[in-house]
Formats: sequence, C-alpha cells, structure tokens
Amino acid sequence: MMDGQIIQVINPNTSLAMTQTIAQAARAVAAPGTEILAVCPTDGVPSIEGHFDEAIAAIGVLEQVKAGREQGVSGHVIACFGDPGLLAARELARGPVVGIAEAAMHMATMVATRFSVVTTLPRTVIVARHLLRQYGFEHHCAALHAIDLPVLALEDSSGLAQQKVREYCIQAKRQDGSGAIVLGCGGMAMLARELTKELAMPVIDGVGAAVKMVESLVTLGLSTSKHGDLDYPVQKILSGQFARLN
Amino acid sequence: MMDGQIIQVINPNTSLAMTQTIAQAARAVAAPGTEILAVCPTDGVPSIEGHFDEAIAAIGVLEQVKAGREQGVSGHVIACFGDPGLLAARELARGPVVGIAEAAMHMATMVATRFSVVTTLPRTVIVARHLLRQYGFEHHCAALHAIDLPVLALEDSSGLAQQKVREYCIQAKRQDGSGAIVLGCGGMAMLARELTKELAMPVIDGVGAAVKMVESLVTLGLSTSKHGDLDYPVQKILSGQFARLN
Amino acid sequence: MMDGQIIQVINPNTSLAMTQTIAQAARAVAAPGTEILAVCPTDGVPSIEGHFDEAIAAIGVLEQVKAGREQGVSGHVIACFGDPGLLAARELARGPVVGIAEAAMHMATMVATRFSVVTTLPRTVIVARHLLRQYGFEHHCAALHAIDLPVLALEDSSGLAQQKVREYCIQAKRQDGSGAIVLGCGGMAMLARELTKELAMPVIDGVGAAVKMVESLVTLGLSTSKHGDLDYPVQKILSGQFARLN
Amino acid sequence: MMDGQIIQVINPNTSLAMTQTIAQAARAVAAPGTEILAVCPTDGVPSIEGHFDEAIAAIGVLEQVKAGREQGVSGHVIACFGDPGLLAARELARGPVVGIAEAAMHMATMVATRFSVVTTLPRTVIVARHLLRQYGFEHHCAALHAIDLPVLALEDSSGLAQQKVREYCIQAKRQDGSGAIVLGCGGMAMLARELTKELAMPVIDGVGAAVKMVESLVTLGLSTSKHGDLDYPVQKILSGQFARLN
Amino acid sequence: MMDGQIIQVINPNTSLAMTQTIAQAARAVAAPGTEILAVCPTDGVPSIEGHFDEAIAAIGVLEQVKAGREQGVSGHVIACFGDPGLLAARELARGPVVGIAEAAMHMATMVATRFSVVTTLPRTVIVARHLLRQYGFEHHCAALHAIDLPVLALEDSSGLAQQKVREYCIQAKRQDGSGAIVLGCGGMAMLARELTKELAMPVIDGVGAAVKMVESLVTLGLSTSKHGDLDYPVQKILSGQFARLN
Amino acid sequence: MMDGQIIQVINPNTSLAMTQTIAQAARAVAAPGTEILAVCPTDGVPSIEGHFDEAIAAIGVLEQVKAGREQGVSGHVIACFGDPGLLAARELARGPVVGIAEAAMHMATMVATRFSVVTTLPRTVIVARHLLRQYGFEHHCAALHAIDLPVLALEDSSGLAQQKVREYCIQAKRQDGSGAIVLGCGGMAMLARELTKELAMPVIDGVGAAVKMVESLVTLGLSTSKHGDLDYPVQKILSGQFARLN
Repeated sequence: MMDGQIIQVINPNTSLAMTQTIAQAARAVAAPGTEILAVCPTDGVPSIEGHFDEAIAAIGVLEQVKAGREQGVSGHVIACFGDPGLLAARELARGPVVGIAEAAMHMATMVATRFSVVTTLPRTVIVARHLLRQYGFEHHCAALHAIDLPVLALEDSSGLAQQKVREYCIQAKRQDGSGAIVLGCGGMAMLARELTKELAMPVIDGVGAAVKMVESLVTLGLSTSKHGDLDYPVQKILSGQFARLN
Repeated sequence: MMDGQIIQVINPNTSLAMTQTIAQAARAVAAPGTEILAVCPTDGVPSIEGHFDEAIAAIGVLEQVKAGREQGVSGHVIACFGDPGLLAARELARGPVVGIAEAAMHMATMVATRFSVVTTLPRTVIVARHLLRQYGFEHHCAALHAIDLPVLALEDSSGLAQQKVREYCIQAKRQDGSGAIVLGCGGMAMLARELTKELAMPVIDGVGAAVKMVESLVTLGLSTSKHGDLDYPVQKILSGQFARLN
Repeated sequence: MMDGQIIQVINPNTSLAMTQTIAQAARAVAAPGTEILAVCPTDGVPSIEGHFDEAIAAIGVLEQVKAGREQGVSGHVIACFGDPGLLAARELARGPVVGIAEAAMHMATMVATRFSVVTTLPRTVIVARHLLRQYGFEHHCAALHAIDLPVLALEDSSGLAQQKVREYCIQAKRQDGSGAIVLGCGGMAMLARELTKELAMPVIDGVGAAVKMVESLVTLGLSTSKHGDLDYPVQKILSGQFARLN
Repeated sequence: MMDGQIIQVINPNTSLAMTQTIAQAARAVAAPGTEILAVCPTDGVPSIEGHFDEAIAAIGVLEQVKAGREQGVSGHVIACFGDPGLLAARELARGPVVGIAEAAMHMATMVATRFSVVTTLPRTVIVARHLLRQYGFEHHCAALHAIDLPVLALEDSSGLAQQKVREYCIQAKRQDGSGAIVLGCGGMAMLARELTKELAMPVIDGVGAAVKMVESLVTLGLSTSKHGDLDYPVQKILSGQFARLN
Repeated sequence: MMDGQIIQVINPNTSLAMTQTIAQAARAVAAPGTEILAVCPTDGVPSIEGHFDEAIAAIGVLEQVKAGREQGVSGHVIACFGDPGLLAARELARGPVVGIAEAAMHMATMVATRFSVVTTLPRTVIVARHLLRQYGFEHHCAALHAIDLPVLALEDSSGLAQQKVREYCIQAKRQDGSGAIVLGCGGMAMLARELTKELAMPVIDGVGAAVKMVESLVTLGLSTSKHGDLDYPVQKILSGQFARLN
Repeated sequence: MMDGQIIQVINPNTSLAMTQTIAQAARAVAAPGTEILAVCPTDGVPSIEGHFDEAIAAIGVLEQVKAGREQGVSGHVIACFGDPGLLAARELARGPVVGIAEAAMHMATMVATRFSVVTTLPRTVIVARHLLRQYGFEHHCAALHAIDLPVLALEDSSGLAQQKVREYCIQAKRQDGSGAIVLGCGGMAMLARELTKELAMPVIDGVGAAVKMVESLVTLGLSTSKHGDLDYPVQKILSGQFARLN
C-alpha cells in the first residue's frame, strides 16, 4: 500500500553533517517501500537556536517544500525541533507536513501520561514551551531541560554533547515524575534507541516519529486540508529575493 | 523492519458484525508485513453509548489485552471512540496501546488547524468532550455533532445512518470553520475514504489511524512506559468473576 | 427534613477492614436521621492503586449502586479517592452519587485558596491529577505528595502509614503555600479530625465530606440529572458475567 | 452533632423583602438543630447589579460577618449571586463562609456534567463568568442567560420576573445541552424546587445550597483556614467611616 | 495632542508618605503636557495587604474616582498592586481607569517572554496570582516572590525593605528563567529605574506604567466602554455612609 | 522626556499605499517630540493573508529592524495584524518592539471586559486566534469576524471594504456581548476614530495603539530584555540571500 512513497525530510539549517544524521535516522525507520529524500537549504543558518534563526530557516523550508511538491513527493518532514515554518509549509504543500517536535510530543503522550524534554541551549526552551501550548500538551509535559551546549556540539567528534544528553535524561528519569523523554533536537536523533534501552523507558526522537507519521497519513489518504486556513497561499507576485517562491 | 508485527484490534463491544467492519478497516491500511488480529469480548455490551457501557466494556478490553499479551502481539488498538479502559490497558500491556478517538484526533491536528467531530447519540458527545480535554485538543475542536442514531444503526442494511453521517459532515464543512472531520464511532470506519473524496477535505476514521499509530510506535521501538504511572498493575489477587484477569 | 435518609457508602475495594474504617468515618458525621449502609463488592481488588485496579473496581461499584437503588437508598458515596466509576454510577443511579475525592476537593476550595493532596503510592498521583482537571481544580491545588506506601499499609497495626501521612502533612504545611490538605485515600479517613487540630489548618477526609454532600443534595431535592448525558443507560442486554447488571 | 449551629445568612443588599425571601429559603432546608440568622446591612445598595454595587455591598457583608463572629455564629452565607466580598469575609471570619453562586455551581457539577445559568440583567453575566473561572467551572457551564429584568422585579407582585425565569429555564433545557440549571439571583430562591419538578431536571438555588454547605463544613469540623492567605486581616487602625470594622 | 491631560493617580491606602512616593514616580514619566493629580482617601486602611484591606480600599477608590470625574480629569490610575476596585471604578468613570498591577504585567509581556513578580507579604501573593489569571498572564509569569515585610516597611528610613527587594530581584534573575521583573507594590515605584540598570534587565514599576497607559488611551480617544458590562452603575439610592457616592 | 524619540513603523508588506495609511495613523497619535519613520520592505509580499505570507514578510521585518537599529531608532512597530516575526524582531532589536495586534488587544482589555475582532479574509481568523492564545486573551475575546475581502480592498477607492468593516462592527456591537472592537488589519487604521464615535464604543486601531505603547516603553526606560530568551541572536554566518542580515 505504501509503494512509491517518497518522504522529503527537510533539515531547516544548512549543516550537511546534520542533514546526514537526520537522513540516517529517517531511513532507519522508513517502511521498505519508502524513499527518504533528505535535503537542506543552500541559503540560511548553520544551526537554529532561537526565533531569529527560525524565521530565516522558515524560508529555506518553504523553498524545499515547493521543490518537493514539484518533484511529487508524498509528504514532508520539518526536521528541526522548533518546527519552523510549519503552518506556512502546510499552506504550500499538497501532501502532509509534520514537524519533528510535533511528532515526538504526540507519540510521547501515547506511551506515557507525562513526558520530559531535553534540549540544547536554554534559549530554545521557550520555543518548546510555545509548541507545547500550540499542540495542546502543556499538561502532558512534566519538565524541560537544556544541556546548555549549542546545536552544533552534537556534530563534533568529542561526544561531549551526547554525554550531556545522556546525563540529563538520567536525571529527568529520577526527578521529573514523567514516563518518557523527548529529545529536543534533530541532531540527537541517533541517540534515542540506545537511551531507550539504557534507561528502560521511551526516549523519543522526532525525526523517526515524523517519518512514520507522514507515512501513516499518506497511507490513510490524509493530506493537508485545503478547505479553510491551510488552503494554498492566495496567489500574489512575490518580489526580489522571494521571486523563486512564485 | 515491520516484519512480524501482529496488531490486536479490540472491538470493546460484543457485536461480531462491527468487529468485522473494524477488521476490514484495519486491514485496508495495515502494512504488508502486519497481521491484524480482530477480537471482541464474549461478555459485555452489544454497543457502547455512555459511561455505564464504557465501564462494562473496559473489562472486556482488559481481558483481550491480557490474552493478546500472552499471544505475543506487538500492540493493541481499542476500537471504540470513547477509548474505554485506555489507561488501564496501558498498565496491563507490554506493547503500545492506542485508542481510535485518540489516534483520529491526533492525526486531525496534523492536517488542519481545527477539526469537527461527528458522532452517534447526543449522550456520547460528553465522552468526546472529556477526551478532547484529556488529550489536549479542546482548542483544536471547532464543534461536535451527533446524528442522533444509536451505534448499531450503522450495522443495519438501510444505509440511513450512513446517509446521516454524510449530511452532518457536509453541514460541518459549511458551518464549523474547521478543516477536517473526525468520525466518532468505530462503526463509521468504512465511510472515511469515500467522504474524504466527496467533501474534498480530510474525514478521519480512528480505526485506520490507530493501526498506523501502533505500527509506527512498534517500528520506532517505543512501547508503553513501564517507568511510573503506567507500570504493570501492582500484583494482587483478583477475586470472583475477575479471577481470569489474575 | 432529612428523616429516612439512607446513604449507601460503597468501598470499591474488597477489604472488609477498610469498609469498617469508612463506615465509622461516615457515621461520625452523618445527621441524626441518616442511616449509613456501608458495603463493598464481593468480587474485585483488595486495594486500588492505579487505572487497572480502578477499572475492576468500577464494576463492583455499579453492582452496589444497582443493589442500593433497588433497596431505595437516598444516595451513594464512592469511597475510593480515584472516584472509580463515578459517571457510570451516576447514569445507573436515581439519587445523587458523590466521590470522596470530588467531595474533599470541592470542600477544600471553600476553606482555603489553595490546597495540597497527600496520597499513598506515587502512581496514584496521576489519578488525582486527572481528577483535579476534570473537576476544575487544577489551579486550586498547590502540590501532590505520595507517602510511598501501599493502601493496605493503612490497615496494618504498626501505625507506620499514619505516621508518614502526618509527616507529609506537616511538610506540606511548611512548604506548599497552601491553606488546607486533602487526604488522598479512604483509608485515611479517621486521621482528618486529629490532624486538623494538630496542624491548626483544615485536613480533609473525603468520606465525611461526601456523606455530607449527598445528605445536602437529598435535602435540597437535587438528584442526578436524568436530562441528557447522565440519563439511565440505554437499555440493552448485558451478557455473561455482566448479566447481573441487567 | 449539628446541635446549636447558628448560620448567619447575609443578604448583601438592603432590601428587607428580599432578606425575608432568603430567610425562608434558608429555613426550608436547614437541619432541625440549625438556627438561621438572616440579616442585611443598614447602609448600602437596594439591589446588586454590577461591580460598583458589589464593591458597596462588600462593606455591608464585612460588617455583618464581624457582628456574626462576635455573636458566635457557626458560619456565614453570602446570599447574593456575585458572592461579593467572599475572600475578604473569609479573612475576617472564624467559621466557614460560603457564597450562593459558589455553592450552587459546586452542587450543579455533582448532578450534571454541564449546567446553565439564568440570571437577571445582562450586565451581571460578566460577574457570573468571572466566578466560573475563579471557582474552576468554566468548562462545566454550557451557557449563561439573562432575563433582562432588574433584581427587584423579583420582589414585585406581578409575577412577571418569575414567569421569565421559568421561560428561560425551559429554553435552556431545550437548547443548551446541559443537565442542570443554576438560578443566578438570591431573589429566585423560592422558585427552584417547583422548577425542578416542572422541568424534571435539577434547578438549583444557591441559598439552600450554601446553607447546607456551611452546615456540612461545620459538622466536619472544617473552618476557614487561618494558615496563609485567609488568615485574619493584619491588624491596623481603620479610619473614619470604616472605624466600626476595627 | 496630549495638552490638558489631567491624570488622577489614586493611592488606595491612607498613607500620605506613600502617596508622595507614587506622585513622584508618576510625574517622573508623565508627558510634558500632563498634570498628575495624586490623591488618597481620607477614610480607609493605612496599607493594603489582603482581601479585607482591598475591600475597604475599594470604597476610597470609588470616592476618588467620583471626585475626579466631577473635576473633569482625563483618566485614573489605581496605584495599589492588587488593583482594588478596578471594575467598579470603570463602571463609575467616564475616562479610562488602569491599575498598576495590570499595567506592569501588560508591559512585562512586551519586553520578555516570561516575567517574575516581587511583592511584600506572602499573603499578597494570592492576590497577584488571581490578577494573573484575570488578565490572562498565568502562562507569562515564571514565579512570584514575597520579601516578607509589610508594605509600610517601604516607607521607613532604614532602607531594609529596599535592600530585600533588590536581593529578591537578583535571585529571581538567577533562578526563574524569566526576562523581566514586575515590582509588586506601589511603594517600590522609585526602585525600578535603578534596578533596571543594576540588573541589566527590565524591572517594571506599575505606577509609571499605568500613567503612560492612561495617557496613551486618552490620546487614542479610547475610554472605558459604556456599552455593556462597564456601563455607569444602574441608578439607585445609596444609603447611610455610602450616600456620598450618590 | 520623550524628546528625540524616533519610532520605526514597519509595514511588513510591500504596498506603498498601505505604508502611507499606516504612517498617517501613526503620526496622528504620536507625541509632539516623536518622529515616525514609516518603512516597508523592498522584497516581499504585496499583502499578508496567511501563514505563508507571514513567513515571507518576517524577513522584511527583520531587515528593517536591523536597519532601524543601525539608524538608532528608539523602538519598532510591526504594522500587520498577525505581528509577523515579532519574537525574532525582539531578538534582533535593542529597543522595544510591539505588534499592532498585540497593542490593540492589550488596550481592548483595559476599556472592556470582552472585545470582538473584525478582520479581512476568513483565513486570517486562525492567525488572530493563535495570537489571542499567545498573548493570554482567549477569554477576553467574544468573537472574531471576517469581512471576506482581501487586505488590498482597503486600498481601492470604492469604499466597499470600509463599508463592510462598518457593517460588521455594527453587527458585532449588537450580537457579541462585547464592549470594544479591535480592527484586524493595519489598512483599517484610519477608520477607528470615526467608528468609535458612530458606535459609541471603543473601536481600536493597532497602529496607533502600538505607537503609544512603544513611546511609553521608551519613556519608562524599558527595552526588550536581553536576559534570556530574547537576547541577541547567537552569532553565526548567514549565507546567500540572508547575508544582508549578518
């Protein structure tokens, strides 16, 4: 039934290394018939750590969604934990679009009554907090933790960031009274399965979660609603640097 | 990756006809490698239309979950829109457990900013309302409608109930300002795909949605958390009619 | 005016000792004209410490409510802090039905701006949390504490559980910034009056609270509404072990 | 157990006729051993229909609470639907203090999943709305209706106001999807029992509800918490017209 | 455009010293064309530290608003952090009325995603908490702190209270994860500017904030709505001590 | 005190005509000493009617904020009702940044207990709804109305859009039970004062409101907090079309 699904996984930052990590996490869970098309914008920010970075990244996401739609992909994943540009992308897309924070949080509520989030810099906590309210999960989140290292520390070879993620997860298990942990960055994707085993509780990576969610929506014949709010953008001429989005 | 998944789809009422409908809807979307095990309790209520019916049905759900776990199924679907016994089933289960109201509502929020619900008897509306609050979606639901026919009307051959579902969906599209419709009864499962086409907007059946959600969780290696609230029930001797749950 | 009131106090677990404790607490506050009929199910769980236990206990509650209704009792108390089967029991009952968590929480909001809860096992905290949301008191609860002993520890002769309850209440008074404490288990009923004196702040037992609430509703001529959601269950044949609920 | 209870029922406006109505409603439900002391301020407003009126009335309430405390009453009822001065009165009182809106709303949630409110002037709706949020019942209220007649119309002999209350209750039953109706004015107290019968659903008068609630709290040994927020006012010299509150 | 604005700044307590502090803070930020008319009631409470004090103070506020309206002032500030009598004053006033808690909280949300509050006695925390809910900012407030000194300690010459405010602000900056601090007492008004510099983050005084808010509303031609809830009080004869409010 | 204030008013769309309208509305209320610097992006969308348009417009807003900051402006107004790029702009800015939806909604809550919103296309309603939740005003908004004409209809010479705005405002006054109306588009700015007079209730334009709010914040010495979430963006090299934001 899923034959021919092509899922575009968009890393909204410009880091090729992180795009690789994300692609790997996506492919690890995709159904046999599903092709993963991992992309990132050419212009943008090397990592996303706040609202300003997200605003920039949203344009790259939209450019990729447009390209993906023209290529006929089945659906799109926005692989940055803030889900930058999500509603705008849904307007532009024909297929479903799912963010990795969204997918991870939704799945967390199905395996635990409350969950914790472990993210990177403290300033990204407010982004997660806003998403919790937007998605309806403020009562399902027990605590948010920041390892206080930048996103790209997850791509260096020291393993320091990975070690800190692990430590914060262990601490969250001990203290938060929650039953699952959501990893708050696409760059942490490869840690989830291992930590799930070590901690003996669900540790959730949004990349895999979002890939399965898009696959599911496509199989179910469900696509972004074009009735109402998420209809295609009202046709108008974009000028200058945005002309390529026309 | 999904080879060998066995998903137990539990119809919490005792209607064999409805169990068949549900099995059909489940199989229509299951991945090639997934086996659907459709079951219903021997003892219980012929249809579920209120809190009393749900309390009875919950016992049947638990008996089936226990049987399923002993058979080694990968996960469980509770195929009644009130998700009766959901948290109790999660305590009992080793794998993931997903309710069809839960799955449909979650998916609705990913394809539309707001959704409507079309259910059976008016008295089931309060059940849906409570679930919306519990799952976090009270702000995502634009309106709830009841066709004012009992659940089993969906199983008679007149087609009247189906016609009323269709009419209420059309009316919801026109009036509610929502972008998707959630069908509020497992017995409506086979209507979703057709109505999605006719209305040109997502009309969501929870049975299919829940099957894909369980499949996804299993593939992701995510199971009901046994750390904390959803841990296996504290061991104690159940007496009398409940002895078979020991 | 209250002459002839018979209040059925249902202990949802099968512990006769706890039923006695509860009966004693009920009688200690009942009006002169009120008769307390303390019952517990014959089949069920010896103590209730999670959602699974609650689902089992709900059946026993329903059987007792049916019996009580046939005996012509004035109203019903569900004497377990999770209020198992409350809405189902309201459908079945002709008179009012009040849960002890419900009664205690309501009364707490009338003597303090915020209250704390002291319960038994940590896994019961989530049950209390869900009730707070359902009843509307999530903003009135300052903190939830678990003494980390099972329910039946309250029935052994060591006095250890009682001592721990006392310690947690003292700590709650010092730390929570709340003005009242709700005892989170029917088995703690006899501690409330003494702790109220020792701590010089309201410490509330739900059993007494619920008895007075039912008495009040009966005197006011208010019974469970049979208009709408809580109307008697739709008539249908229950099969097997549930036949006695027909 | 309730021997010697004296409950002070304070009509916060200066209408002697309404004080009589309220006294009658209170006495109709009081336990045999309970004495009702119905009072109203000498200085103040003849009826309460907005925030300004409430601010004036709150002083009268406080003067009466002080007098009642000095007379050794067991508890106090504030018999105006806006519950004017409730938290201030709790600071001043030694015994419990309950407002009639508060009592009626609490009881409504125990006999129905959702309730409607029928009040007097449209401008009093906002007061009821604020109370719903404060008490935690915004999700339990289905609709608010105003008969658009002033409070004192309930005291004239035409019966017009009573007729309008009845009509709005009938309409609420038909339209709101709620299971109970709360009467939004102390002056409507004598209508509740009759309307409950005519409509065959609970129609709730706050005066009776509050009397039973205070009686219950006193019997349970629960009084306004003097630990924290509701402790007696910090001692300071009140000047001028307020000197009598010293 | 603002020529001729006269803003009445009402200190709701009877302390002349605090009225001076407040007048000074108001004048420090008023536009060149704005006249500040600082007043306080003759009868009332010397300081406001709870609901009882607020109820008393509300009458003084109303008397001053009436006097101010008769003098033709442009708008009114209620300069006590609990905003006593705010909605009643709005009914009575022709121009806009703004409370200092209200103004400070609103402005805090425009310079930070979350803010902390530093107030006087612990029992005033509940007042701030209720205002946060009423104004819609419960999700914007990270923490509330009480320095545990009475309001009038801010008027003695020791500087102790000021020192404690400073310490709590420093601690809030370090611990709360908030971006701004709201000072929770009119008597702290003169500390804001200095603390803003020392802490290098916005520390907000409500007196100045409310003066600017009233000035802005007047300039925009926006006054308290007389359509609906906040219309002038229904005309009725106030008796006794309240006759001067006729 | 306000001498030398320069407020940058950013129209996020590329319409010069609308930029003029906005500039005029801003100057009509600015203090004598305040200079209004009205700007719009060179590249972007001609009007903003959904999430996609907002994502594009956010980049133009950021470019203007950067330019404004380099010119030393005192503060910034984002003059589109969706407040596109607000939090990103706050990270980038040194001074305060206020959106016109934000300012109008805040002010509405100070002159009425509940307000209505009148906006352009139906699809912009969801944007307003999200802002209401984000700012905390979901309980203060009685209803949202869309005139069902595109934004630029407000700039044609027919007057049709203006007439429809007027009609919807009149209808909102009659039906919504609200005391104020918020105009939901920068292009409606010049209608507010006239409609306020005609309807005899506050009709609020966000452009004027935001200008006064920024003026007030600047006068009070309050600027966007650089402690925490809204600190300047983490320094990193933006590539390609975004290089001009470096």
